[in-house]
Amino acid sequence: MKNSTLRTLLSHRSIREYKDKKVEEEKIEDIVEAGMQAPFVSQMYSVIMEKEKENIPFDAPILFTICVDVYKIKKVMEKRDWELVTNDLTLLIFGIQDAAYMAQNMVVAAESMGLGTCYLGSPVMTARHLKEKYNLPEKVFPVVQLVVGYPRERPPVRPRYPLEFVLFEDEYPKFSDEDIERAMETMDQGFLQEDYYRKLNAMISVKSKDEDDLTYDDYSWTEHISRKWGQWYDELEGQMEKLEACGFELSGED
Amino acid sequence: MKNSTLRTLLSHRSIREYKDKKVEEEKIEDIVEAGMQAPFVSQMYSVIMEKEKENIPFDAPILFTICVDVYKIKKVMEKRDWELVTNDLTLLIFGIQDAAYMAQNMVVAAESMGLGTCYLGSPVMTARHLKEKYNLPEKVFPVVQLVVGYPRERPPVRPRYPLEFVLFEDEYPKFSDEDIERAMETMDQGFLQEDYYRKLNAMISVKSKDEDDLTYDDYSWTEHISRKWGQWYDELEGQMEKLEACGFELSGED
Repeated sequence: MKNSTLRTLLSHRSIREYKDKKVEEEKIEDIVEAGMQAPFVSQMYSVIMEKEKENIPFDAPILFTICVDVYKIKKVMEKRDWELVTNDLTLLIFGIQDAAYMAQNMVVAAESMGLGTCYLGSPVMTARHLKEKYNLPEKVFPVVQLVVGYPRERPPVRPRYPLEFVLFEDEYPKFSDEDIERAMETMDQGFLQEDYYRKLNAMISVKSKDEDDLTYDDYSWTEHISRKWGQWYDELEGQMEKLEACGFELSGED
Repeated sequence: MKNSTLRTLLSHRSIREYKDKKVEEEKIEDIVEAGMQAPFVSQMYSVIMEKEKENIPFDAPILFTICVDVYKIKKVMEKRDWELVTNDLTLLIFGIQDAAYMAQNMVVAAESMGLGTCYLGSPVMTARHLKEKYNLPEKVFPVVQLVVGYPRERPPVRPRYPLEFVLFEDEYPKFSDEDIERAMETMDQGFLQEDYYRKLNAMISVKSKDEDDLTYDDYSWTEHISRKWGQWYDELEGQMEKLEACGFELSGED
């Protein structure tokens, strides 16, 4: 018999339909305070909240934008007569962790209170726009958004890789073809059974082809991620520019 | 009255003394499976586990190394006749999130079962060594380690910034001097009351000074992070080399 926290963790699924119902102020506070209590490197995070706005995805009542925040560290250091010297790449690697630990605690806290959540990865691409919209100072990078509200759907828990494709004792194994194929089948069958991509209408098209070889009868997770990482975000420079626009210098030309 | 998941989240503190007691196999499985159920971008994670080894910090029974894993994605894509084109910086930004969401769920799961945990941020610096030790393939970067075991200490919950220094509605505010000073005082007084740095013997020395201006009576959190980010990891190139050694090319020279 698993405890209720484990049951909350194991029953997570992203929610994309929400009730027209506000989230109580106490619950919002509980969510953010639970987030802040995550272990941290240097509390390099800030959260912007929007409530009951037109533009929140899935008509949800709340949208959190979780940012890597090195601006506050700088301000604190100035007060102590110190100057920030750590390079921006190292700060980002630690800062993304800080922000993600906080975000994930927020997800768990919200779900433990019967709320639904969904991450949006788009800030990594739209950082410049969000910086302007939220008036973010230099050295603040919005890394992920989190939609929260009362769920109006009850989807099944989504598949994951088999445990033996994730957890390794003492060293990283050599995978056999069968290991990889088994992991792929677990994912693909799981999403196909749920008719996941058809319901979401989320097929990514193949740029080089006018007509698709696949339909929603056979398009599943491994094809979806292949079309993403096989076609999108190829330019290193484009990503660097987004970070530079937010005050993180990674080109070594500073 | 907060539910038990919230109580688990809010009572987190890192544990640095462990009992000489094994962690049950079922609990290890629960921890990792709870980790895997976190929301993910592309399951870009792998976990290496060491058990009951000489070299685990704090004599804890278990050490997990949580890695950003793009190697598995590449393998999956090859099987589908796709080639990875996304740049390594974007992959890292998403991959660190995947790994961190998983790691944080592991922390929460472990603590809900009475176990203690402590993150170690050192892999960001020792990646090359860990790659060799664990035989990590190309495009796997160890981002954080997690010590787990039965706690032999019961420290208080550590302070955090005030909520109003973290959560902002609609836009990022302009901080007054008082806002910053209040946040600093909350942190510093909290750690001083606990005599945290003296107990850990964790003072970072000032490179440019033979004698320190501060003692453990006044050395606290804001000075600690200032000495870290004011003296350590200044070279962008050094961090890039660590990532390159693990197969992530960020210099744009590829």
